[in-house]
Amino acid sequence: MKRQLATYVHPRTGDDRVGLMWGDRIVDVSAAYAGLLARAGERDAVGLAGKELPPAMLALLQRGDDAWRALDRVVELLGEPASGAPAPAGPDAEPIVFDAATVKLRAPVPRPGKIIHTAGNFREHAREGSQGGWEFQIPPWISFLKCTSSIIGPDDDIVYPELTEKLDHEIELAIVIGKGGRYIPPERAWEHIAGFTVFNDISARDLQAREMKSGLLNLGKNLDTFAPFGPCMTLRDDIGDVHDLKIELRVNGDPRQVSSTNRLSVKIPEIVSHWSVMRLEPGDIISTGTVSGVAAFRPDPTDFWLKPGDLVECEIENIGTMRNRLVADELTPEQRSWLDARRSLFASDQTDEFRK
Amino acid sequence: MKRQLATYVHPRTGDDRVGLMWGDRIVDVSAAYAGLLARAGERDAVGLAGKELPPAMLALLQRGDDAWRALDRVVELLGEPASGAPAPAGPDAEPIVFDAATVKLRAPVPRPGKIIHTAGNFREHAREGSQGGWEFQIPPWISFLKCTSSIIGPDDDIVYPELTEKLDHEIELAIVIGKGGRYIPPERAWEHIAGFTVFNDISARDLQAREMKSGLLNLGKNLDTFAPFGPCMTLRDDIGDVHDLKIELRVNGDPRQVSSTNRLSVKIPEIVSHWSVMRLEPGDIISTGTVSGVAAFRPDPTDFWLKPGDLVECEIENIGTMRNRLVADELTPEQRSWLDARRSLFASDQTDEFRK
Repeated sequence: MKRQLATYVHPRTGDDRVGLMWGDRIVDVSAAYAGLLARAGERDAVGLAGKELPPAMLALLQRGDDAWRALDRVVELLGEPASGAPAPAGPDAEPIVFDAATVKLRAPVPRPGKIIHTAGNFREHAREGSQGGWEFQIPPWISFLKCTSSIIGPDDDIVYPELTEKLDHEIELAIVIGKGGRYIPPERAWEHIAGFTVFNDISARDLQAREMKSGLLNLGKNLDTFAPFGPCMTLRDDIGDVHDLKIELRVNGDPRQVSSTNRLSVKIPEIVSHWSVMRLEPGDIISTGTVSGVAAFRPDPTDFWLKPGDLVECEIENIGTMRNRLVADELTPEQRSWLDARRSLFASDQTDEFRK
Repeated sequence: MKRQLATYVHPRTGDDRVGLMWGDRIVDVSAAYAGLLARAGERDAVGLAGKELPPAMLALLQRGDDAWRALDRVVELLGEPASGAPAPAGPDAEPIVFDAATVKLRAPVPRPGKIIHTAGNFREHAREGSQGGWEFQIPPWISFLKCTSSIIGPDDDIVYPELTEKLDHEIELAIVIGKGGRYIPPERAWEHIAGFTVFNDISARDLQAREMKSGLLNLGKNLDTFAPFGPCMTLRDDIGDVHDLKIELRVNGDPRQVSSTNRLSVKIPEIVSHWSVMRLEPGDIISTGTVSGVAAFRPDPTDFWLKPGDLVECEIENIGTMRNRLVADELTPEQRSWLDARRSLFASDQTDEFRK
């Protein structure tokens, strides 16, 4: 069985909990483990399961080896997902298996410590950048942080911010860090990876270009809802050949970014090793760079910017597909006044003149 | 009483908890509130106090008005701190008052969602930048994110990373967000501020300059331990005139950055309003920009770069003083090999040539 973990919203409690994709169903792993412990005679099955296989993704990743061992037992119990296979029982009468099509998914790690974005990395993206007149160098090792408050789930809406006229997409394979560390050699990198997910690095290109002229980048990448990822995390050892995965992003069904991880300039272990120059922690997300086909680098991008109503689908082989709809920003009258008063400021080049 | 909240490490449990500075003592606010509720006949005093005045800072800030009301009752109970005043009792025999000089402090918000840094803002800093040959424009509204894994407490050591030869300091007044929001008008900004703290934006100038040539900034600001802040958060209504606070950073007792918040180009409400273009959340930190005197902008910075052994003191009026010692990086032999193999890569300009 290909082990894929998602964070789902429990239909009754509303809590974010880790589920294992099991065919077209999703199994609560901590509850399944508690059921297993209870049947083995453990009195405080829920308490012990909560410790060894925590119900929340970040805690599970922080727990490390204990959690992976407990998960193995759950996977063994479940067996291959066959249609109609009997659902495992939890520690009590509560259901612990849900129809995957009906539960709400969040990003697999709903609130990681940090998201490091490798800018560049795919040769083709760097090349189309220079051809498209991008005025900045794209060296192999350059990065920026996405903020965690912009994270949304794999089915959530991306809010179209009125401050941009150039909203773009960037599909990326993203690494989820399991074991933390610093200065990790490439040959040990695999041990530090929990799994892989699909990231869409939503970008406001006009804001981005204006910021980068001053040597910095924040807003162009970090407005609200700019960080969808999911739908799940495929565990490291079940991803197959991580350097040979098909990548495809479609807008309203039209393929816009089509590539493969076999075109990565720098390979996964080297990426983890490099960014471990910062302290990596369990749950940290590292994106690996996007592939050719973004709107910004097209000869005439006019018809390719994202707009309200668009459906963006991001698919990577052996992980799955995210579907995010673009929606208009619903503002209160007060927020609308704020926006109207500042529109020109965000659209300006912000030279030192403004400071006078 | 000037209300100042710190996050301290409970001497027995090791938990991070919120304490109120009370003269030379620190009072656990959630436990003090539980004691107050218990004496009023509440049966589940600890449970109720944990909900209304949560023991951890981020949860307290997320709780909002309930928590501030509960805190008011604790403050009223305590009264002005007088030497020898009787310590309040908790819900049980556990001590809830500690000698401030002996407990370990963490950053007031040990793990906020994000840290937004306003680059520039003080005219004098922008001016010394242009005079010092800084090649980037410093417009008033430009920013970068610090990562939360680099946060250390007000007495912790800053680890000198061997990858830089130009380690610098930047003292800044930082805003702690209480109530979240987006597109907040300046006239409502004050309502969204919980308090103020002292931030030292540690910077590796050589890494920073190399990154900024590509229009991005991450490592130069985000190596391990690069984000000390504290020692406490002075509550919004107790800060005095926030636009007239003395600022001083000393290295080994030598004043290096001496200024006042009366030289801020853009005022606090406007700063909060502006960055609310991103979604602000309870606990978010917004720095307001540094003042003149950083090493990088001196005519001859040679003797001013930070080095192992240095003691950096950061003081802002009505908040307090942070004292961080610079220490050498202690690496395992494996980490040392990693570093030796990559030193030249991080020192290089990373042109596209590298990619071939």
